[in-house]
Amino acid sequence: MYNFRTDLASERRDIYQKANNLNKIEGIETEKEEINENIKVERVKITNEEGEKAIGKPIGNYITIDINKLKIAQDEDIQKAAETLTTELVKIIDNHVDKQGEILVVGLGNLYVTPDALGPKVINEIDVTRHIIKYLPQYVEEGTRMVSAISPGVLGTTGIETVEILKGIVDNIHPKLVIVIDALASRSIERISSTVQLSDTGIVPGAGVGNTRSEISVKTLGIPVIAIGIPTVVETAVLVNDSLDLLIEKLQDEAKSNDYLNRLKEEDNYEEIKEALLPKDYNLIVTPKEIDDLIENMKDIVASGINGAM
Amino acid sequence: MYNFRTDLASERRDIYQKANNLNKIEGIETEKEEINENIKVERVKITNEEGEKAIGKPIGNYITIDINKLKIAQDEDIQKAAETLTTELVKIIDNHVDKQGEILVVGLGNLYVTPDALGPKVINEIDVTRHIIKYLPQYVEEGTRMVSAISPGVLGTTGIETVEILKGIVDNIHPKLVIVIDALASRSIERISSTVQLSDTGIVPGAGVGNTRSEISVKTLGIPVIAIGIPTVVETAVLVNDSLDLLIEKLQDEAKSNDYLNRLKEEDNYEEIKEALLPKDYNLIVTPKEIDDLIENMKDIVASGINGAM
Amino acid sequence: MYNFRTDLASERRDIYQKANNLNKIEGIETEKEEINENIKVERVKITNEEGEKAIGKPIGNYITIDINKLKIAQDEDIQKAAETLTTELVKIIDNHVDKQGEILVVGLGNLYVTPDALGPKVINEIDVTRHIIKYLPQYVEEGTRMVSAISPGVLGTTGIETVEILKGIVDNIHPKLVIVIDALASRSIERISSTVQLSDTGIVPGAGVGNTRSEISVKTLGIPVIAIGIPTVVETAVLVNDSLDLLIEKLQDEAKSNDYLNRLKEEDNYEEIKEALLPKDYNLIVTPKEIDDLIENMKDIVASGINGAM
Amino acid sequence: MYNFRTDLASERRDIYQKANNLNKIEGIETEKEEINENIKVERVKITNEEGEKAIGKPIGNYITIDINKLKIAQDEDIQKAAETLTTELVKIIDNHVDKQGEILVVGLGNLYVTPDALGPKVINEIDVTRHIIKYLPQYVEEGTRMVSAISPGVLGTTGIETVEILKGIVDNIHPKLVIVIDALASRSIERISSTVQLSDTGIVPGAGVGNTRSEISVKTLGIPVIAIGIPTVVETAVLVNDSLDLLIEKLQDEAKSNDYLNRLKEEDNYEEIKEALLPKDYNLIVTPKEIDDLIENMKDIVASGINGAM
Repeated sequence: MYNFRTDLASERRDIYQKANNLNKIEGIETEKEEINENIKVERVKITNEEGEKAIGKPIGNYITIDINKLKIAQDEDIQKAAETLTTELVKIIDNHVDKQGEILVVGLGNLYVTPDALGPKVINEIDVTRHIIKYLPQYVEEGTRMVSAISPGVLGTTGIETVEILKGIVDNIHPKLVIVIDALASRSIERISSTVQLSDTGIVPGAGVGNTRSEISVKTLGIPVIAIGIPTVVETAVLVNDSLDLLIEKLQDEAKSNDYLNRLKEEDNYEEIKEALLPKDYNLIVTPKEIDDLIENMKDIVASGINGAM
Repeated sequence: MYNFRTDLASERRDIYQKANNLNKIEGIETEKEEINENIKVERVKITNEEGEKAIGKPIGNYITIDINKLKIAQDEDIQKAAETLTTELVKIIDNHVDKQGEILVVGLGNLYVTPDALGPKVINEIDVTRHIIKYLPQYVEEGTRMVSAISPGVLGTTGIETVEILKGIVDNIHPKLVIVIDALASRSIERISSTVQLSDTGIVPGAGVGNTRSEISVKTLGIPVIAIGIPTVVETAVLVNDSLDLLIEKLQDEAKSNDYLNRLKEEDNYEEIKEALLPKDYNLIVTPKEIDDLIENMKDIVASGINGAM
Repeated sequence: MYNFRTDLASERRDIYQKANNLNKIEGIETEKEEINENIKVERVKITNEEGEKAIGKPIGNYITIDINKLKIAQDEDIQKAAETLTTELVKIIDNHVDKQGEILVVGLGNLYVTPDALGPKVINEIDVTRHIIKYLPQYVEEGTRMVSAISPGVLGTTGIETVEILKGIVDNIHPKLVIVIDALASRSIERISSTVQLSDTGIVPGAGVGNTRSEISVKTLGIPVIAIGIPTVVETAVLVNDSLDLLIEKLQDEAKSNDYLNRLKEEDNYEEIKEALLPKDYNLIVTPKEIDDLIENMKDIVASGINGAM
Repeated sequence: MYNFRTDLASERRDIYQKANNLNKIEGIETEKEEINENIKVERVKITNEEGEKAIGKPIGNYITIDINKLKIAQDEDIQKAAETLTTELVKIIDNHVDKQGEILVVGLGNLYVTPDALGPKVINEIDVTRHIIKYLPQYVEEGTRMVSAISPGVLGTTGIETVEILKGIVDNIHPKLVIVIDALASRSIERISSTVQLSDTGIVPGAGVGNTRSEISVKTLGIPVIAIGIPTVVETAVLVNDSLDLLIEKLQDEAKSNDYLNRLKEEDNYEEIKEALLPKDYNLIVTPKEIDDLIENMKDIVASGINGAM
């Protein structure tokens, strides 16, 4: 399979179309909506195996919410983004469980690594109801959905695959659906902490950073898994590859390019760049300097988006 | 049963002996050791049902390590305390599993509530080996014990009883022993974050603060549970009750007391004080102003004490 | 002077009146207002030397805002409390500088000691304008007040008296007024982090915890100093003294008291209790277990109260 | 002046020599020492105006300590690095003040922005003595140097230029020397948080990130200023420029390059790349994903290096 180096289905579709000079891929449907000047939604649906094979993502729904200028977002922007997430989340949840079906929200990641702390931070803000419904039912309205939440830690600090922890909990408390929040690797630095991808096909933690863990999905847990993925880091080789294209484009504009460079731009030079950077320990995973604020704003959006959907 | 208002077996023994004018309780054996001028160890063994009934703790071992002046402890003091914990922990672990028996370390508590943050903070420092032995066995010596660690959160933020989470994990990854770290309520403010109690009879989270959760023990998990409990808070009524005794003692010394006060001192006035404080919302759970530093020092002791024992 | 053991002028007035069987003190005027069922404002004005001498506070204005049940406060409660603070703050600022007079906001305390972290946390939320007005005046409306903010640290970590740091800064940047935020010792545990005292007579840091630092006031800085003080800790002896009164009151209600106890209640036993507790290291400064959440809520109130007033 | 895009004198010297095909620059002396396989020291001395003009740094001493693999550094490595810093620091301090000359340590930066938090974190670990010598002289040995420490915040949150704050404090408490700790921009990502530059010519905060603040030096404060600078971030255009060189080098090795590329490599393409990236908001300042751990390790080295030198 093509190495897409992105977990976003919409980016993969674009890359595949460009590489194969297509306007449309069989088995992939797309729908775009502009919520306001700063928020855009794109819904990608993979409907059959052809689509699945083309972009290497399982049949299912992939919704991308792009939030412009999150770094300097005001309270209203954050609230609008949260409402957009709520709307999309409600639709995708309703596809899989009924209004009262118990939900377990899982925040992946490591609280002590800033660009990986989103999941645990969101969990701390989820309005859980499961214990109230069980022990103090008089305090909640009838028909309230049971919601529980956990931040299981990462393999490096627990020694346990996350899916093993979740499998144990799911088998013991029997929720009907799992929502997993995870930080992703991005293909482009401007997307960092400004894009949310919703999908109903589960997640492979660490996939984006070449550190693949066992899949968390209906296959491994036995119940549907909705994934909320947010890009927070980018690999240097990816960054350089994209920057090189921008540079050559500029040289072309200025008629300073040549055949060799033009060909360089047509090709994907990621592997070559990576090989050049590796011996110097240059191929680090990086994150913007302002990652603390970005994570804080994104936490507000995701937590309040999820709470709104419950 | 008598309301001991302490989770420490050694304190319960003292209270029971005093209340019943005894020098020794049938079915309870005691051994004291002074490690140095700042560190003392006391080993209480409950050997039969008589002892169990007297102080309301199950048959088993209870080891108290007292560390004097932890607030101003130097690095050597902390290291010595950690070594003492290691020594006691090794003995108690060896009683229950063999040298290679897999251990799961569990840190109870809430990272965002300072006096309740000890468990999660310790977990972050545990040297886990389970994933290395499974995926990169060439990096560890043969015979290394599998160690994993988890900080499952608290009922209020997860919506799930901790024992339900742990039961699921234990059933799925099959460790041979669990070590649980928990913050306890103390009977006396000077013991806060300066005492460690080790026991091999499990734990009831929140027991000390009148917020009892389901037991975590061999009964509920099916494997032995060693508990490491550290007092970090005290109830105002307990504090006032003890302070009242100190005040009357002083009045007696100065011949300013009277029969009524002397009798007050002989009795336990906790319930009466609690009833007097409750209507004014006075009966708060409190912690020393310096709790951040105390927790930090205690985290170093417990984490390094556990790592040393593995 | 009487040892009031409280920095709140309204509490001192009550204590003095009770001790001297007065209904009113010459030179002290009082005004109460109930904002809603959870928020009360009390304005104490010391108008002459007689009032000053009675309660040991300099001539000036002392406004207490009490916020009930802050621990479980909802967003609206916090906003209402912030608005109340803004209203009172605007009045007191207008007494001392004109609408454009530059203000320096100072957050006292230690970020790493939870009950002492309020000041530094508020500073991080203040909308400073001084640098924008100086370097990018086009981005602010004409007539905007210059606001700067600093969190100078505490003597124990800087080695410098706070007033020395502030004196240096004030002499160098020339603001017209200073607002100082400080954590106070409380006389009563239920007031912890639920009361704000505004005054225009400056502050003596650490005064409430027997750790007096040099005064921060018009006398030492040469410009008016408005203090915003919030009780966050209480001394054990104070707690026991007050609790003892509640206990004896209850005994009296049940006709179980006696002359001796009745007299104990009439007297102030603080010194006696303190002496009884000291030898056992019992006289700690304590704070409620929930101090993290209380500080977080209070930070929102004070920061947004100040920002609203600018 | 040439745009060196690095604050490290040793890097500037290399760049200047390469650009001008020199083996040595008049007015610049260099000395290298290998402490062990992981730690290297390089001492650059600018002795006259010619050297000053060549690399755009004032006459003075510039010492670079490189610590290899800090990310996975063990306790011994950190201690060795701290000792190396102590040795160099003692020499440079002794050049400027006598053994008892009072020192003020200043930690620049913003605690809430991870890659900028080093200064404030170090300040929290400095052993200050000034207040003890002033108020409790019996607790320190005679001849102990007065040390104070402050973390003044950043312009964006205080509204005040750091040099204005420091000028005020220095004029008020009269130290003999200032040590300033600051995060720098790096020219190369592998140097991030693994290099320390010591110099006795002061500092221009934010210089490395195109956000220049007023100089902190003997010129503005009136006393010598030793700067301890640690690179923690890198600009994307710098990263791409360097990566491009590595890529072309690899193409050259594989005989896949051409004249145009060879020329690209000889030239500095930073400005061109920056212009290509800017329109797409691509030219972010980035930091490695592991910045939290790097800052933590570097904090231990710098704090313990400074404490050792006092």
